[in-house]
Amino acid sequence: MKIVITAGGTSERIDNVRKITNSSSGKLGMTIANAILDKHRKELDTLYYICAKDSLRPKNEKVKIVEITGTLDLEREVKKLLTSETIDYFIHSMAVSDYMVSYVSTASLLAETIQTSDNPNLAEVIKNNKNVVGGTKISSYEDNLLIMLKPTPKIIALVKDLSPQTFLVGFKLLDGTTDNELIEVATKLLQKNRCNLVVANDLANIRSGNHKAFIIDGHGDKVIANGKEDIAEKLAERLFEND
Amino acid sequence: MKIVITAGGTSERIDNVRKITNSSSGKLGMTIANAILDKHRKELDTLYYICAKDSLRPKNEKVKIVEITGTLDLEREVKKLLTSETIDYFIHSMAVSDYMVSYVSTASLLAETIQTSDNPNLAEVIKNNKNVVGGTKISSYEDNLLIMLKPTPKIIALVKDLSPQTFLVGFKLLDGTTDNELIEVATKLLQKNRCNLVVANDLANIRSGNHKAFIIDGHGDKVIANGKEDIAEKLAERLFEND
Repeated sequence: MKIVITAGGTSERIDNVRKITNSSSGKLGMTIANAILDKHRKELDTLYYICAKDSLRPKNEKVKIVEITGTLDLEREVKKLLTSETIDYFIHSMAVSDYMVSYVSTASLLAETIQTSDNPNLAEVIKNNKNVVGGTKISSYEDNLLIMLKPTPKIIALVKDLSPQTFLVGFKLLDGTTDNELIEVATKLLQKNRCNLVVANDLANIRSGNHKAFIIDGHGDKVIANGKEDIAEKLAERLFEND
Repeated sequence: MKIVITAGGTSERIDNVRKITNSSSGKLGMTIANAILDKHRKELDTLYYICAKDSLRPKNEKVKIVEITGTLDLEREVKKLLTSETIDYFIHSMAVSDYMVSYVSTASLLAETIQTSDNPNLAEVIKNNKNVVGGTKISSYEDNLLIMLKPTPKIIALVKDLSPQTFLVGFKLLDGTTDNELIEVATKLLQKNRCNLVVANDLANIRSGNHKAFIIDGHGDKVIANGKEDIAEKLAERLFEND
């Protein structure tokens, strides 16, 4: 039995010093890893734990840590694992950046590009601006810095493409939605990426200390869990049910 | 004797989940705090240690931790300390964001703004665009997200303005400069902000494991230090020399 858990958050480089990141600590991923190690250590061969440099992580001789920084690193490691090994479960709790940096420029440089372009599609001119600020560390003296972002590759979409037999658990985090909206969005994620389960939760709940989550499956069945420990417990039970 | 040390890195909010930050761990600030505690515990009343949530920090009953997130939080806490207490030394090793988020938009929304504006100053139109993406968590389905940044207030400039008698130590980190360029830039920082000392170092050196730094004073005298421990030692000695 081989499991992959992704945990923590990716970060996307702006320059050698600055980055765009998120606040994920890896606590949920670590708690899930520990619940699986508690319940199923014997059946487990290897738990690959893909995380960021500063993520919380489980400590056990069956755990192999794979450290990554940006979404492209994550993509490379996920591809490598899914094509070189038989992965039974893939639990994708990492908060992956939706965007990476396309270019860094300034209001003045972008204005120059627009004024000298004869392309009538202005949005495209803005998107493809090549008048950028360079260097390894962007000077602190630029006036109005402008960062253009582009979408990152969707990592979750890779899993069933590369390894259709892998049991896939996706995660959806929204902010300030109703339960029904949350379940609807999570179900879309499940269908689109052929997840076996999706854990759906809402930031507003987490902030209020009430980490309520729905564990949703392909039949529309929902289990409610309260807090990271409970999510991890219920997930660990649910996974090995399928053997 | 009261000391303020700022350490670690600020982070600037993009939305409730995403942020722009830097890689500072707070290790240099913590090492300096420990060197001061080692050498001068008796004379010390309080060491205010202003840092980020995830920064490394000294543990001692004379240390008061002040946690901040963004540059505006830092500004508020620094103002509060410098106006309510007599601070003898202010050691500003925190990596403060030079920029904070002005607005989040997309290439298409900005194109719309430009097309409907009659202001001939295009850079200003781009800078003041009000056609923005809102909400507490920006959707993952926007195509080309654009983040406009604006300069943050310069914290180091506050110190002598609010408390002229405080001994001020500034830090300058550059990347890939010659020693002469580094010293020139650090000297400018010192003069502009009336620092008593500036610690100047270069990322390229740090990456190669050779954390060479110059400790520069207002007379143009330079001391070379090698590594964080040595910087902390030499700084701790140098500070209390002035009593």
